[in-house]
Amino acid sequence: MIHRFQPTKYYHTYGPNHPALRVSPGDTIIATTVDAGGLDQDGNKITDEMRQSSPETLYSPSNPLTGPFYVEGAEPGDTLTVEIQRITLTRPTAWSANASNFGGLTEEAPGRRLLLNDPIPRTRYEWALDRENNTATINFPGSRFKNPVIPLHPFIGSIGVAPRYGRVEMSLTPGEYGGNMDSPEVCVGSTLHLPVSWKGGLLVFGDIHAAQGDGELCGVALETSSELQLKVGLIKEQIEWPRVINDDWIMVAGSSRPLMEAFKIAHFELIKWLITDYGYDRWDALQMLSQVGRCTIANTVDPNYTVVAKFPRKYLPE
Amino acid sequence: MIHRFQPTKYYHTYGPNHPALRVSPGDTIIATTVDAGGLDQDGNKITDEMRQSSPETLYSPSNPLTGPFYVEGAEPGDTLTVEIQRITLTRPTAWSANASNFGGLTEEAPGRRLLLNDPIPRTRYEWALDRENNTATINFPGSRFKNPVIPLHPFIGSIGVAPRYGRVEMSLTPGEYGGNMDSPEVCVGSTLHLPVSWKGGLLVFGDIHAAQGDGELCGVALETSSELQLKVGLIKEQIEWPRVINDDWIMVAGSSRPLMEAFKIAHFELIKWLITDYGYDRWDALQMLSQVGRCTIANTVDPNYTVVAKFPRKYLPE
Amino acid sequence: MIHRFQPTKYYHTYGPNHPALRVSPGDTIIATTVDAGGLDQDGNKITDEMRQSSPETLYSPSNPLTGPFYVEGAEPGDTLTVEIQRITLTRPTAWSANASNFGGLTEEAPGRRLLLNDPIPRTRYEWALDRENNTATINFPGSRFKNPVIPLHPFIGSIGVAPRYGRVEMSLTPGEYGGNMDSPEVCVGSTLHLPVSWKGGLLVFGDIHAAQGDGELCGVALETSSELQLKVGLIKEQIEWPRVINDDWIMVAGSSRPLMEAFKIAHFELIKWLITDYGYDRWDALQMLSQVGRCTIANTVDPNYTVVAKFPRKYLPE
Amino acid sequence: MIHRFQPTKYYHTYGPNHPALRVSPGDTIIATTVDAGGLDQDGNKITDEMRQSSPETLYSPSNPLTGPFYVEGAEPGDTLTVEIQRITLTRPTAWSANASNFGGLTEEAPGRRLLLNDPIPRTRYEWALDRENNTATINFPGSRFKNPVIPLHPFIGSIGVAPRYGRVEMSLTPGEYGGNMDSPEVCVGSTLHLPVSWKGGLLVFGDIHAAQGDGELCGVALETSSELQLKVGLIKEQIEWPRVINDDWIMVAGSSRPLMEAFKIAHFELIKWLITDYGYDRWDALQMLSQVGRCTIANTVDPNYTVVAKFPRKYLPE
Repeated sequence: MIHRFQPTKYYHTYGPNHPALRVSPGDTIIATTVDAGGLDQDGNKITDEMRQSSPETLYSPSNPLTGPFYVEGAEPGDTLTVEIQRITLTRPTAWSANASNFGGLTEEAPGRRLLLNDPIPRTRYEWALDRENNTATINFPGSRFKNPVIPLHPFIGSIGVAPRYGRVEMSLTPGEYGGNMDSPEVCVGSTLHLPVSWKGGLLVFGDIHAAQGDGELCGVALETSSELQLKVGLIKEQIEWPRVINDDWIMVAGSSRPLMEAFKIAHFELIKWLITDYGYDRWDALQMLSQVGRCTIANTVDPNYTVVAKFPRKYLPE
Repeated sequence: MIHRFQPTKYYHTYGPNHPALRVSPGDTIIATTVDAGGLDQDGNKITDEMRQSSPETLYSPSNPLTGPFYVEGAEPGDTLTVEIQRITLTRPTAWSANASNFGGLTEEAPGRRLLLNDPIPRTRYEWALDRENNTATINFPGSRFKNPVIPLHPFIGSIGVAPRYGRVEMSLTPGEYGGNMDSPEVCVGSTLHLPVSWKGGLLVFGDIHAAQGDGELCGVALETSSELQLKVGLIKEQIEWPRVINDDWIMVAGSSRPLMEAFKIAHFELIKWLITDYGYDRWDALQMLSQVGRCTIANTVDPNYTVVAKFPRKYLPE
Repeated sequence: MIHRFQPTKYYHTYGPNHPALRVSPGDTIIATTVDAGGLDQDGNKITDEMRQSSPETLYSPSNPLTGPFYVEGAEPGDTLTVEIQRITLTRPTAWSANASNFGGLTEEAPGRRLLLNDPIPRTRYEWALDRENNTATINFPGSRFKNPVIPLHPFIGSIGVAPRYGRVEMSLTPGEYGGNMDSPEVCVGSTLHLPVSWKGGLLVFGDIHAAQGDGELCGVALETSSELQLKVGLIKEQIEWPRVINDDWIMVAGSSRPLMEAFKIAHFELIKWLITDYGYDRWDALQMLSQVGRCTIANTVDPNYTVVAKFPRKYLPE
Repeated sequence: MIHRFQPTKYYHTYGPNHPALRVSPGDTIIATTVDAGGLDQDGNKITDEMRQSSPETLYSPSNPLTGPFYVEGAEPGDTLTVEIQRITLTRPTAWSANASNFGGLTEEAPGRRLLLNDPIPRTRYEWALDRENNTATINFPGSRFKNPVIPLHPFIGSIGVAPRYGRVEMSLTPGEYGGNMDSPEVCVGSTLHLPVSWKGGLLVFGDIHAAQGDGELCGVALETSSELQLKVGLIKEQIEWPRVINDDWIMVAGSSRPLMEAFKIAHFELIKWLITDYGYDRWDALQMLSQVGRCTIANTVDPNYTVVAKFPRKYLPE
């Protein structure tokens, strides 16, 4: 069954929010997303009425999320699968920015504010997308290299379920539930596995990036709107951290602080996977991953950092 | 007005849980707490029915919290004050433990599990409290020094309000809302200031420690039950992180990862405080704190680590 | 001029050791190296007499280095360039190991010893190299996937000059002088730039890896012996950290702790390079690198960790 | 035997520099030191000719050190003891400064330079010392609190031997050899134990601080000149990290990065000491230290950070 979904309300948290739609394992969702700043396909900002809000408290306005989707039969301890079938960029522009107190080259504290040094100036960049040729460009008047044309690689910056232990997290935060991982591996051709911690899973997503460098250095990628096509499934087995599978790799996305812990989580969990599902001996798994593993620093800017550890599928037994 | 409160339900999250009692600024709360493992004054474990629970998800069972207390008039952006007037230990024992995958000398990843090394054996320790003489003792049969008698210093391990941005945090986690800071400075004679992020503030507390070393090295202090007397107040000003004031010091508790970030937050915020409230020049504040500041590592074991930065009150203008 | 060099003595430090050979900018060095454990092309261990030694102190025996080469005219503040023209593996085997207290999944302390947990068992692995087909294989009897055949990618694990400020570093340590970076980018087709801090530069190298995964997870790659052909040059300009240039990328290798600092150094220095040499505006450089940069975690196991930040040459002006 | 020593040359490295004086275990050294900036008791800067220098390279000019003292009979694997008997401040002033790219509230990278943010302005502070009353004061014209009078607590900022494995370290760097630990515990009444790694030990010291807050936040304490009286001794046993003993505490100083690793090293080594020398069971040692241990963050500004872990002597068996 195919569900077409156009949000009338956007969420700013991963948590037990009221389901927007109930779907079944095997169903396909076709849904739109606005960008990380809340701009839709026409470049218009969603209104405050369209956002998760409450007279009791304030929500952080970044990364409005589409959903939540309640997956029938999903129980805590299960694994939700999301096959990413299509990401269509729905407008010809994407914005980015150097932020004053955000990004991989500022302080690491929450809010990343620098009291003592003056903050770096905020600069906004408007990139033009050429969706025919799958490229983006921008004018850098002050630089010697003026009009770079860079390749697009659209992926889902934020996608997750309700977190473990009754927690509610901001849409900006990645964790064991997925979330704002900003991992370029979460693109068409990949299937994402997420650990279910709340009945129905409560899947939300948004924050599409048309392109991004490793680590999302300045804290903002090429932010744009999209229409997504996702196929959901359910596995009655438990995983601890998000897994990504494509034709060539099995991968684990670890999110934590400091950066080294994200690295360790991703690699620990990948080794556990090699042992449990693929019959590797514990020490052989460590040895083999040490020689053929690859890893990506997905983000160094969010409240948790994300590292993706990768093992080539060609070294898995049938 | 004095409110006597005996919980019938304990909470495992900091968040917008249903208020157990409404109090007004200036009121005093006298309430009991169970220990971090859920043992009451008779050493009996609270039942599952007495815990925050849901058919939809699972909660982490550590650190059951008393509350929430809704403070009339408290709005997001206000500051809640809690004067700690009395901590009465309500049983003659406290327990501690070396945990298998927890503590400052294990890995730093969430869950702190070590896949590759075998975990350290769990060992439980039962300390006898002498509440007359304010000491504790234990038998170490395998050690040359057999029966240490150590001083008690009771304090509140976990105390906080509902977090910023609609987040819900586990009772194990400290943050900008207070929480499981495990800071020995939160003891009788101190007043704790917390930033209100949710209408009513929604104060909860528990996890009393009869004694604890710096950093809470093994992850478990002398855990016991108590009766607390707290006086709440309200200030119509905004703070970013918990502050603690006693006769000698003004203090800020920063909680984050890595440890250096907790250190930076605490010191940043203390300098901001010296500038804003006490008329210190920005650079003089840095210089003066550098020469007379003290700081405590409160915990190195929770999902965020806590550092308390301290400035002597004698160097504040009238 | 071409210098053929067969060491009779191997060094265990980066520092002002007595030059083995004087060469001039533009000269080519053809020299052999033993592996990280001191095994030569016949699998024989070099003798103690062939190692840097002293009756006054002890040296760490890892990573014996070939050299030092004194480059005529090199002064502190200059840049030494090393074009890697050939890496010939000189024996049909490489060894690796899971070490007890070493590697990216152990503690981070120097020596990485775990007092409280028991150490992981040491396991040695002997890989067979097929130098015709550029592959390696091994027998994993205890694992379901038995005989992986993996591609070779030979590179120089350790290469550096005498460090800044009169320091002497172990051959195991990477830093601003290069050293044990364990970066797969230091391979044939690349030119390495190193900051000269001591008259003559005093270049040393060794520790060839036939293959290695990102981060050198278990701490040991496919360790083997080699013959290298390197062309040295001299630039009368100052750099702060090692740079690597190949046909597609300009790169900076940052080495520090924690891992995030290695990341920051590499990216800071790459942005400075874009500004200084390529006319990028400061903020445009940050924005552009954020969208097209790639980065590799080279090692997470040495006394400093190494991250390599990369910028595509196609976005550089002529 | 008492040796009076007035340096004619100051060293900028911990390493195998030429001994200035040979002493025997049991001897007392009375020697002068200049401050971290090279100012002597008259406030005059030492000349370039009086500094460690070489036509071959450059040395970092901070923290000029008095020594080296060759201790007869000291062999690699031994422990050198230094009893601090007297610290006499030899001038009535001390200077401090907020540095542009240094200190606990800047970036953590070596050199700590911030490319993207503008650096904080350098501000120099001249403190007046009242050596009669053991206080210091300064004029803060721009601040509301004008003339703070703070207590003096003189200690040795930098003291160490030649490092392990033939390394040479800058006088700014602390490590397993001691060095620039900036630990207030290294004061009169304490005995420092250092691991000997080079024949004769090669003790150097300097960088006296008249006062300092925890963590040495701005990177500069109250820097002044001194005359020291130290009694050296030798123990034929091996230690791994510096130990400090006074009437009340046994302590270990761990120096590393990130800060958490310095914390772990100090506590690991303190537990090992409790087991080996005092007959504590491994798990009891962890439990006991967890309840009664104290720790100090000595510095968060040097190339390695230093944490001092402390255990009360009253809980040691006779």
